[in-house]
Amino acid sequence: MPYPDQFEGYMINELGKYQDFKKQSFKPKKFGDNDIDIKIECCGVCGSDVHTITGGWGDAPTPVCVGHEVVGKAVKVGSKVKDVKEGDRVGVGAQVWACLKCPQCKSDNENYCPHMVDTYGAPYPKEVDPDETISQGGYASHIRAHEYFVFPIPDAIPSHLAAPMLCAGLTTYSPLVRAGVKSGSQVAIVGLGGLGHFAVMWANALGAEVTVISHSPGKKDDALKLGAKHFVSSGDENWAKPLAFKFDFVLNSADMTNEFNLSNYLSILKVGCRFHQVGLPDQPIPNLQPQQFMANGSSIGASHIGNRPECLAMLKLAAEKKLFPMVETLPVGEKGCAEAVERVKNNKVHYRFTLVDYDKAFGS
Amino acid sequence: MPYPDQFEGYMINELGKYQDFKKQSFKPKKFGDNDIDIKIECCGVCGSDVHTITGGWGDAPTPVCVGHEVVGKAVKVGSKVKDVKEGDRVGVGAQVWACLKCPQCKSDNENYCPHMVDTYGAPYPKEVDPDETISQGGYASHIRAHEYFVFPIPDAIPSHLAAPMLCAGLTTYSPLVRAGVKSGSQVAIVGLGGLGHFAVMWANALGAEVTVISHSPGKKDDALKLGAKHFVSSGDENWAKPLAFKFDFVLNSADMTNEFNLSNYLSILKVGCRFHQVGLPDQPIPNLQPQQFMANGSSIGASHIGNRPECLAMLKLAAEKKLFPMVETLPVGEKGCAEAVERVKNNKVHYRFTLVDYDKAFGS
Repeated sequence: MPYPDQFEGYMINELGKYQDFKKQSFKPKKFGDNDIDIKIECCGVCGSDVHTITGGWGDAPTPVCVGHEVVGKAVKVGSKVKDVKEGDRVGVGAQVWACLKCPQCKSDNENYCPHMVDTYGAPYPKEVDPDETISQGGYASHIRAHEYFVFPIPDAIPSHLAAPMLCAGLTTYSPLVRAGVKSGSQVAIVGLGGLGHFAVMWANALGAEVTVISHSPGKKDDALKLGAKHFVSSGDENWAKPLAFKFDFVLNSADMTNEFNLSNYLSILKVGCRFHQVGLPDQPIPNLQPQQFMANGSSIGASHIGNRPECLAMLKLAAEKKLFPMVETLPVGEKGCAEAVERVKNNKVHYRFTLVDYDKAFGS
Repeated sequence: MPYPDQFEGYMINELGKYQDFKKQSFKPKKFGDNDIDIKIECCGVCGSDVHTITGGWGDAPTPVCVGHEVVGKAVKVGSKVKDVKEGDRVGVGAQVWACLKCPQCKSDNENYCPHMVDTYGAPYPKEVDPDETISQGGYASHIRAHEYFVFPIPDAIPSHLAAPMLCAGLTTYSPLVRAGVKSGSQVAIVGLGGLGHFAVMWANALGAEVTVISHSPGKKDDALKLGAKHFVSSGDENWAKPLAFKFDFVLNSADMTNEFNLSNYLSILKVGCRFHQVGLPDQPIPNLQPQQFMANGSSIGASHIGNRPECLAMLKLAAEKKLFPMVETLPVGEKGCAEAVERVKNNKVHYRFTLVDYDKAFGS
């Protein structure tokens, strides 16, 4: 049963066997009046995909088709859909549904809706889908999503560069904007990887003076090219001392915060400012004591993607200023998916993968 | 050598032997043009005193005279002192000196000055005092402090009720004000002890709707009397569920955060809001993961006392609205000090001690 009854995707059947992608069919949720079906053209590979299929984040329903940085063409549009029509090039990020009625949704915080449906591995509420179908992601022929989570892609952005914006881009753009980063702000970006390299571009475009803090001195050139003014190697002893009380905002995009001397990272904040995490390590932060915040009244927090207005603003900014990520491509397929997740797991990517050649894998 | 060459105080000579107070003499820092000598009338007993002399917070110089909630009479005033004259009733909190020149001091954050001198157990910088004298606190006949850290006490506040305001009061008032708590704010105060009972009064006076969360159901009446609208017993299973996404600010005054299920406490915050700590446990918070902040983009932070403008505003508010803490008194002395710290350690105080009868102990 091909589309529209079934979608096809490269799926993982057992967590931990994270390279064993098999091409399988799966049934999407029941089509609703606000839904849009997208024939996928390409999909970014996110750290979340790897944490999910390795089991690093714990249990998850299988079989699972990961991928939540989707770009493609709208091929079917529900009767109540307003802003998208068949043939439009559109994107989907890490969320495909929210209630749009709760206080969070009503205050542009649908990314914190307690009823939200993640793009993959999450059951739809019974009221929305009688079968409580588990959502499936973008290493697949098609995706079905509520129109509120489908974003028109500006013509100026090529699809394979737009894809990683939809999770990694938004996940870094939203906290920078919500922290009030603006002209003259001092911002540190910790870690220059898939997330961090976006954060440098956005913070610079918002007018901040950006410092990259990385344990890889070899990334200095890329950091400066992306818009950073300063590069600090966290391998240097006493790196934090000259930065005491310097930053309005520290965005941590690193995955290995559990190996950090967190007091160093907190010490570089101005009074009352925040160390903000967008990387989600498998391991907890060790031995955090309230005393560690006391030297500057700092705090530590995290955020989950961003909202629709932020996503649209980010795409507009990227299109206008030609801010594009550094992306490698691989053909979607059992081999391409396996190589991509293995290299993301080992930080061997510069700086983001997009899976392409969907027509070859799934037909045109 | 009596005053002014030497002060007398009830001191601890070995950390851990926290009830072995001995009346001893000590030499104050060299008197400076901005200094004020205060003959002490009374002094509050703070959890910090106990954490210090038990050794719970680690090493500290001994012999130590603790106490940083001091009220007394100015008996000597430096030549450059502007706002205090001999005979004035004044108070000193947990800080006696800062550089008043660094960016933190210049932005009303002298409580985060990297050169600050705590009221006891901290060496003065050599430029200020050639002997680098270690500061000593208020279980003593006198205290010497820089004028910026000496606060006139409004006539409407009795001394033994003013004393605990100078640390516990300010420590809770400052973060509430800095968090923007105002009419209509939803504020939760976790723990109803020395700090928490102040926080309830202040938050209520600032116009917030206050919920007290406590593991002691017997404190409900006090909570409501102090101005709370709601009382939640954290011993009840699922206590946090009905409070999801409710609060603009959660102020944690409890000392035992290490025993908390922190995810529960974070879940009650509105999107982007903060769980703020003013209690300083001996133990770290266990197993904090960025994922715990993800449901609402929350954060966790802490603060250190408050600044001078906040202290003056707090004293004015307390005087105008007759907001006084619940205080038990004990006579200063080897026995009184020992009983006070033992009962504070075991949470057997309702809700704060002030040591009194200083004239009997040190002469009038």
